[in-house]
Amino acid sequence: MKLVSTWADARASTVDRGTVGLVPTMGFLHEAHTALFDAAVAANDVTIATVFVNPLQFNNVDDFVAYPRNLDRDLDIADAAGIDTVFAPSEGEMYPTDMSTTVSTGAVATRMEGEYRPGHFDGVATVVAKLFAGLRPDTAYFGKKDAQQLAVVRTMARDLSLPVDVVGCSTLREPDGLALSSRNVRLDPARRSEATALSRGLQAAADLVAEGVVDAAALVGVVRTELDRAGVSPEYVELADQAGAMPISSVDRPCFLAVAAWIGEVRLIDNIHIDIIAGLPVPDRGVTLSSRSVLYGGS
Amino acid sequence: MKLVSTWADARASTVDRGTVGLVPTMGFLHEAHTALFDAAVAANDVTIATVFVNPLQFNNVDDFVAYPRNLDRDLDIADAAGIDTVFAPSEGEMYPTDMSTTVSTGAVATRMEGEYRPGHFDGVATVVAKLFAGLRPDTAYFGKKDAQQLAVVRTMARDLSLPVDVVGCSTLREPDGLALSSRNVRLDPARRSEATALSRGLQAAADLVAEGVVDAAALVGVVRTELDRAGVSPEYVELADQAGAMPISSVDRPCFLAVAAWIGEVRLIDNIHIDIIAGLPVPDRGVTLSSRSVLYGGS
Repeated sequence: MKLVSTWADARASTVDRGTVGLVPTMGFLHEAHTALFDAAVAANDVTIATVFVNPLQFNNVDDFVAYPRNLDRDLDIADAAGIDTVFAPSEGEMYPTDMSTTVSTGAVATRMEGEYRPGHFDGVATVVAKLFAGLRPDTAYFGKKDAQQLAVVRTMARDLSLPVDVVGCSTLREPDGLALSSRNVRLDPARRSEATALSRGLQAAADLVAEGVVDAAALVGVVRTELDRAGVSPEYVELADQAGAMPISSVDRPCFLAVAAWIGEVRLIDNIHIDIIAGLPVPDRGVTLSSRSVLYGGS
Repeated sequence: MKLVSTWADARASTVDRGTVGLVPTMGFLHEAHTALFDAAVAANDVTIATVFVNPLQFNNVDDFVAYPRNLDRDLDIADAAGIDTVFAPSEGEMYPTDMSTTVSTGAVATRMEGEYRPGHFDGVATVVAKLFAGLRPDTAYFGKKDAQQLAVVRTMARDLSLPVDVVGCSTLREPDGLALSSRNVRLDPARRSEATALSRGLQAAADLVAEGVVDAAALVGVVRTELDRAGVSPEYVELADQAGAMPISSVDRPCFLAVAAWIGEVRLIDNIHIDIIAGLPVPDRGVTLSSRSVLYGGS
C-alpha cells in the first residue's frame, strides 16, 4: 500500500488503472470503515482511501480539535483491508490559502443535521466534490449511518454532473446496538449505556415497520418514547426520503428514520434506512458485531 | 460534426479520444467564438463546443428572454471551424428539476460584475463546473473580454480540484474598437457609436501603460474622462488583479482594467488585460478585425 500526501501523487495512483473505488474518511478508522474498504476492494481494480479531518465541515471548533486522530493505526487498517493507496493531504494541500469557491448544498441540507450543524454539509460537499473531481473514482463508498450525508453527496454528484456512483453501506453496530462512530471513544461508561437508547428506539420502530406500520408519527413516537425512558432529549427524530432528505408523513418511498442527540459532551446520530422492495417496506437494521469493536476497544 | 443533446452522448464523444478541448458558449456565435474554436482545434485531439443559454447566470429575466439565439447558424460556424461535437442540451437535460446543489464563487465574484449582477457568477460557475466535471476536458477556452468570468472559472477549477487548464483568448474588436459581443446586435446606430467610448477609453489607458504609467487612479481616470466626453456613465471602472479579481492600486502584477456601462437598453463590458512580461507591464489591446464582423453584420 502507498501513502501519498499530494493531489499529483493521488491522481497518479489511480489514473489508467481500471475502475477506481474511493473511500473518503476522516480517519480514526473502525470496523465500519473496514466494511467500506471491503466493498471497494471487492468491486474495483484499484482503491484509494482518503484520511482528512476536514475543518470546513466542523461547525464547532471544539469538535474539530477533539476529533480523534491516529494515522499510523489507520494505515495498518487500510493496508490489512487491501486498499491500494491512502491519500492523507495536509490542510494546505487540500485548500488553497485564498480558497474562494465552495459547494452550496441547498434544500437537501436544510433539515435535521443541516439545521443543527449550520455549514456542515457545505463543508462535506465541498471536500467530497474535490475528491470526486480530482481523483475521478467510478464508485465511492459512504456509510448509511450518515444518512443525510449520503443524500447530500448523491445529490451533489448528480447536480454537478460528477459521474460517480455513490454506494451506501449498512451501519455497523456494537453487540448492544450502538452504531459504530469514531466519536464513541469519547463516551464514559455511564454515557455509553445511555447512548444505546438511540438504537433501541430505532430497532423498535423497525419492528413496527416489519409489522406494517407506515405512519411517520407512529414511528417517530416509538423512538421518542424509548429516548424519554433513558432521559435523552433528542435534537430531532424524523422520517425523511432518501433522495431529498425531506420530511415525509408515511413510508411510501425509500426513506430513513433518523435521530440526533447529545449524550453528555458527545453528539451522536443514528438511523434506520427503509427501502421499498417488491412494494414492501424493508428496514435495514444494520450489521451487529458479535463482539465489542476491537479497533477502538469500547470498554 | 456531431450535434448531441444528452450528457451521455456528449461524454461518449470525448472519452478515450486523446486530449479534449472544450469551448463553452451561449450560442449566437461570432468571430470571437471562432477564435476560441481555432485555439481549441489547433491544440487538441478532439473538441467539443457547448451551446446553452444558461438561465442560472441571468440575474435579469428580460436579458435572458432577449438574449439572441440561432442554433442552425451556430452549427454552421462550429462545423466550419472544425469542431468535432456540439453539445446543445435542453434546460431539463442540464438541470434536474429538483436541483439542490450549486457552486458559490466567494470573494473572486464580489466586485465589479459580481456587485452589479448578483448571482450571475454563481450561475456561471455552476454550469461550467458541470461541464468540466461531466465532459472532463483537458483544456477549456474562454474570452478575455469577460475578464472577471475568466478569474472566476480559473479559481473555481482550482478550488474544486477540477484538473482543467483554463485558457484566456484575446478580445476581438470591430474596426471602430467595439469589443465583439452577442449583445451588440441590440444596439441601434446612435447607441452603437456611443458604445465605442468604452474601447477608446481603455485604449487610451493602454497608451499610458505603454508609457510607463502604473497608477490605478490615473488609468481609471483616463477611461472615465473618455466616457464623460461621450455622455456615458459607467457602473464601474476598476483595475483588478487577474488571479483574484480584487482591486489593486498599481500595475504591479497581472491585472485587467475593466469597465461596465449601460448603452441605452444594453449593458456592455470591456477590459484590457495587462500582463507582466520580463518585469514590464504589457497591455493586451485585443485583435481588431480589418472589416466589420460578418457573422452578426453590425450596422
